[in-house]
Amino acid sequence: MTMSAHSHAPAPEQARDLARRVGETMFAVDTASKDTMGMELVSCEPGRAVIRMTVRELHLNGHQICHGGFIFTLADSTFAFACNSYNKNTVAAGCSIEFLKPGHLGDVLTCEGVEQTLSGRHGIYDMKVTNQRGQVIALFRGKSAQIQGTVIPETADAGDQP
Amino acid sequence: MTMSAHSHAPAPEQARDLARRVGETMFAVDTASKDTMGMELVSCEPGRAVIRMTVRELHLNGHQICHGGFIFTLADSTFAFACNSYNKNTVAAGCSIEFLKPGHLGDVLTCEGVEQTLSGRHGIYDMKVTNQRGQVIALFRGKSAQIQGTVIPETADAGDQP
Amino acid sequence: MTMSAHSHAPAPEQARDLARRVGETMFAVDTASKDTMGMELVSCEPGRAVIRMTVRELHLNGHQICHGGFIFTLADSTFAFACNSYNKNTVAAGCSIEFLKPGHLGDVLTCEGVEQTLSGRHGIYDMKVTNQRGQVIALFRGKSAQIQGTVIPETADAGDQP
Amino acid sequence: MTMSAHSHAPAPEQARDLARRVGETMFAVDTASKDTMGMELVSCEPGRAVIRMTVRELHLNGHQICHGGFIFTLADSTFAFACNSYNKNTVAAGCSIEFLKPGHLGDVLTCEGVEQTLSGRHGIYDMKVTNQRGQVIALFRGKSAQIQGTVIPETADAGDQP
Repeated sequence: MTMSAHSHAPAPEQARDLARRVGETMFAVDTASKDTMGMELVSCEPGRAVIRMTVRELHLNGHQICHGGFIFTLADSTFAFACNSYNKNTVAAGCSIEFLKPGHLGDVLTCEGVEQTLSGRHGIYDMKVTNQRGQVIALFRGKSAQIQGTVIPETADAGDQP
Repeated sequence: MTMSAHSHAPAPEQARDLARRVGETMFAVDTASKDTMGMELVSCEPGRAVIRMTVRELHLNGHQICHGGFIFTLADSTFAFACNSYNKNTVAAGCSIEFLKPGHLGDVLTCEGVEQTLSGRHGIYDMKVTNQRGQVIALFRGKSAQIQGTVIPETADAGDQP
Repeated sequence: MTMSAHSHAPAPEQARDLARRVGETMFAVDTASKDTMGMELVSCEPGRAVIRMTVRELHLNGHQICHGGFIFTLADSTFAFACNSYNKNTVAAGCSIEFLKPGHLGDVLTCEGVEQTLSGRHGIYDMKVTNQRGQVIALFRGKSAQIQGTVIPETADAGDQP
Repeated sequence: MTMSAHSHAPAPEQARDLARRVGETMFAVDTASKDTMGMELVSCEPGRAVIRMTVRELHLNGHQICHGGFIFTLADSTFAFACNSYNKNTVAAGCSIEFLKPGHLGDVLTCEGVEQTLSGRHGIYDMKVTNQRGQVIALFRGKSAQIQGTVIPETADAGDQP
């Protein structure tokens, strides 16, 4: 019998494994992020996620820079993966974004999202979007609310490995 | 010589005509809004704009609802048209959004944006996204900052009236 | 038997009367707003409130203008009265403010708060702070969440009219 | 001739000393923060500040908890000290706050503010308010804009050391 048998929180490896599987499952059916926007899920860990997107023609607005809405979308997707990473269905309640620099054609934008607080069903997550030169493009803050249900079946967590 | 020759503000009709031409010019080259998202510019008036978008497969996230980032993008585009409508190049400095209801496949989302204040180079604009049943989907507030330059050549404003 | 006996919403006069009594009750014990800040509750109606505050020495920061926090406090109090006006205990979940002009010593700041949406337990309220010249000082947006309980005893609503 | 004669940024000790003097100077005349609210300036460093406030009777609203506006005010003051710490006059352009837990009578609230980005004249600062048990009470994000002038005379920076 191990110590983790007594704890309510999954052991770190289990939590990381669960987050990774939740992320892969969500991403596989996320047409908007994967197919329409062309994002790549770099990592999904407990309370954290990283997503990358290269600015292509389809992202350009009339000023020939990346539409701010798509920078928001990149951050919002990262937020979704970070706050669903515990396998509790979680939705965005509100978000704010500050745009600091434009994204240009060919720029590789990386968004890293980190949980700031999670208390009961509500959490605050901060996303930072940087370009390939390490410049901060945007800062996004999201507020999450857990709802009913899980992303992947809970039985899948337990596994039935011998 | 007409009264408008003395005034600094264009006459209302001229302002409306200018806003309409600015909107059409911006929209024609806005790949992101027009082609990628499938938006339709309904109107662009001084300090106001309306844009419409039907939720299609390409907009769906892993929960099979419209990606919140695309609802933001609809509002952000509407914001851009409203705050550029005076033909002064204007950018978004920061935005916040509150998501109130999801958008489902086939929903027709209409975003109306209205200027709340414009003082010097800075303005505040409020966007409301509703669905075909009149339900409010999201509220967005944007802060704008005018930069140098115009959207369409200023000479085009004067026209060639005798 | 009157029509209102069948309806779930109180009749307009009853709703207005309830809102007024809720406002007076809340304000009477609101040391922070009334005594510390010197605010005056102008009106409390269903989904709306107006509060006024004159900028005094005690409100000045190191720049000798009204501390932005106290302009926020004026708006936040107005928000509280507007969102509690239905006599359901309601708290602020998050707020954003845009500061547009400073408040100077002697300025009379009036904040008007109006409900934008109320859906289930969550609402969005917009506050506008103006000075005695009608200039907009700040725009505030608050998100509310109803919790358990009422501001004044519910039996007090029914009255004991014959 | 010293190395700092070649650099545009002041040497770290000088920057820290300048920030400390700017903080003390600002705080000494900040009636709102010091006298009205009873705050204590714990530290003011380049791009950072810490302010503490004990919740007293005067801070209580009608729910007998600390008025959210005063928690905002604590964060807004901390923001002001952090963003003015380089001795460039800097104002708040916009702020958002998320309230996570109430502050009760006697609670000691500590706000720590940290610069996230500073690019040209615009910066983003994050404030975290915690209570004496280390619980997060609120998260605040402020956007700053440098304006003309300095907080203390620039000649005072140079000193007159031999």
